[in-house]
Amino acid sequence: MVVISNYLMNHPYELTSLNTFAEKYESAKSSISEDMVIIKRAFEEMEIGHVETITGAGGGVIFTPSISDTEGRSIVEELCAKLSESDRILPGGYIYLSDLLSTPAILKNIGRIIAKAFRNQKIDAVMTVATKGVPLANAVANVLNVPFVIVRRDLKITEGSTVSVNYVSGSSGDRIEKMFLSKRSLKAGSRVLIVDDFLKGGGTINGMVSLLSEFDSELAGVAVFADNAQAARDTFEYKSLLRVTNIDVKNSKIDVEVGNIFDKE
Amino acid sequence: MVVISNYLMNHPYELTSLNTFAEKYESAKSSISEDMVIIKRAFEEMEIGHVETITGAGGGVIFTPSISDTEGRSIVEELCAKLSESDRILPGGYIYLSDLLSTPAILKNIGRIIAKAFRNQKIDAVMTVATKGVPLANAVANVLNVPFVIVRRDLKITEGSTVSVNYVSGSSGDRIEKMFLSKRSLKAGSRVLIVDDFLKGGGTINGMVSLLSEFDSELAGVAVFADNAQAARDTFEYKSLLRVTNIDVKNSKIDVEVGNIFDKE
Repeated sequence: MVVISNYLMNHPYELTSLNTFAEKYESAKSSISEDMVIIKRAFEEMEIGHVETITGAGGGVIFTPSISDTEGRSIVEELCAKLSESDRILPGGYIYLSDLLSTPAILKNIGRIIAKAFRNQKIDAVMTVATKGVPLANAVANVLNVPFVIVRRDLKITEGSTVSVNYVSGSSGDRIEKMFLSKRSLKAGSRVLIVDDFLKGGGTINGMVSLLSEFDSELAGVAVFADNAQAARDTFEYKSLLRVTNIDVKNSKIDVEVGNIFDKE
Repeated sequence: MVVISNYLMNHPYELTSLNTFAEKYESAKSSISEDMVIIKRAFEEMEIGHVETITGAGGGVIFTPSISDTEGRSIVEELCAKLSESDRILPGGYIYLSDLLSTPAILKNIGRIIAKAFRNQKIDAVMTVATKGVPLANAVANVLNVPFVIVRRDLKITEGSTVSVNYVSGSSGDRIEKMFLSKRSLKAGSRVLIVDDFLKGGGTINGMVSLLSEFDSELAGVAVFADNAQAARDTFEYKSLLRVTNIDVKNSKIDVEVGNIFDKE
């Protein structure tokens, strides 16, 4: 039972037949079925996720990881407190985030929260822009069990042929810059969740959206770790874990609240 | 039992007291103890990992994830086959790796294999260089439950103060370049595992090693996804999952074998 639940957790969003378990763990299919009932109940009770049983010849079980809104909220509130730490303010009013986005325990939780917020969407890939978005996209992709796609701001030989689009970079003073995506990294017809660390003007995300159409792919949604209250909400819908409402450089004060990710549609 | 094993798997390398479980899951400590015996046996049998019990007042259990050498080897052999695909050769004799390093299922396995290879080392952080190393470092850090540290080749305002070192970049024709690490991203006295995607001349890794001494930190080891047979083995010890022995651009042929990661010391 321990072993089956371990297998499910490591293979989310994947249909596994009971025969596979029976062969793998050398047990009768009936006892696997019984174990599955207990696992299902335990997972639901603790809101670890849902185990769906699909009957019929091609049937089996699919595990969809989840997280309770209570747990999600308390995690985000903790992040709020961390983000408000005054020593995060960098010259120019930027906020230092790298430590939060490089701690596995935090990333895993963020991945679970974002994945749950988009659980009703079919998602084939997670897209982000290098470098700070990568661990976030990785975390979400881990939970969804889909590949992630890294858009670059520079051209690397090791990416092969690329497609590029122009975008308006807010951080370098509304300059037009280019972003690149390796041609083989995204299949046509993919539904893509865009993930990024900090949303300000939205130029980077708009750039990624235009890349999607170059790859004949579709936007499934946008999720950001933190947004700025002044963020351009009119160009695209997005969900954020944290909202920075004010950065007071003079008094080293950052005001942060929970974003809109838990809002009901 | 399912819930406890789930908790352990999500909190590797962390001491948790049985009281924590008893409170969290509202059960008697004695029944938690009994469950733990079964979990321990199941984890060992399937080589999912070890559950160590530490007795005494500050005691509890620590879960160390593992992977059997048989499973590890078969995963690496599959990667060998994937890396040998002829359409990976890029102009200039580079190999396209990005698809492998952006698939969660592959990354999780690589993380487990690398973590196991360094299980006798105390590791406080995993270090890599942006961008392609990030998912790898993330995967290893996930298993070890330690933060990862991203060295950059460019300077970003959002990193705050940085320390820089020079390094010899093989990919841009033995040019001297600079790499940067945010000052607050690594504590002094850390033991660091360096991880990278492809080892050729070793310039990048030597750069990271010199960064370590700038941060008064120590090298715990070097692990790479793939190395080139001509790689500079004399400057530092490293473990690789895959070794590329020959790239024949003319005939679109890549020869790959299992690296030295499973070698006994």
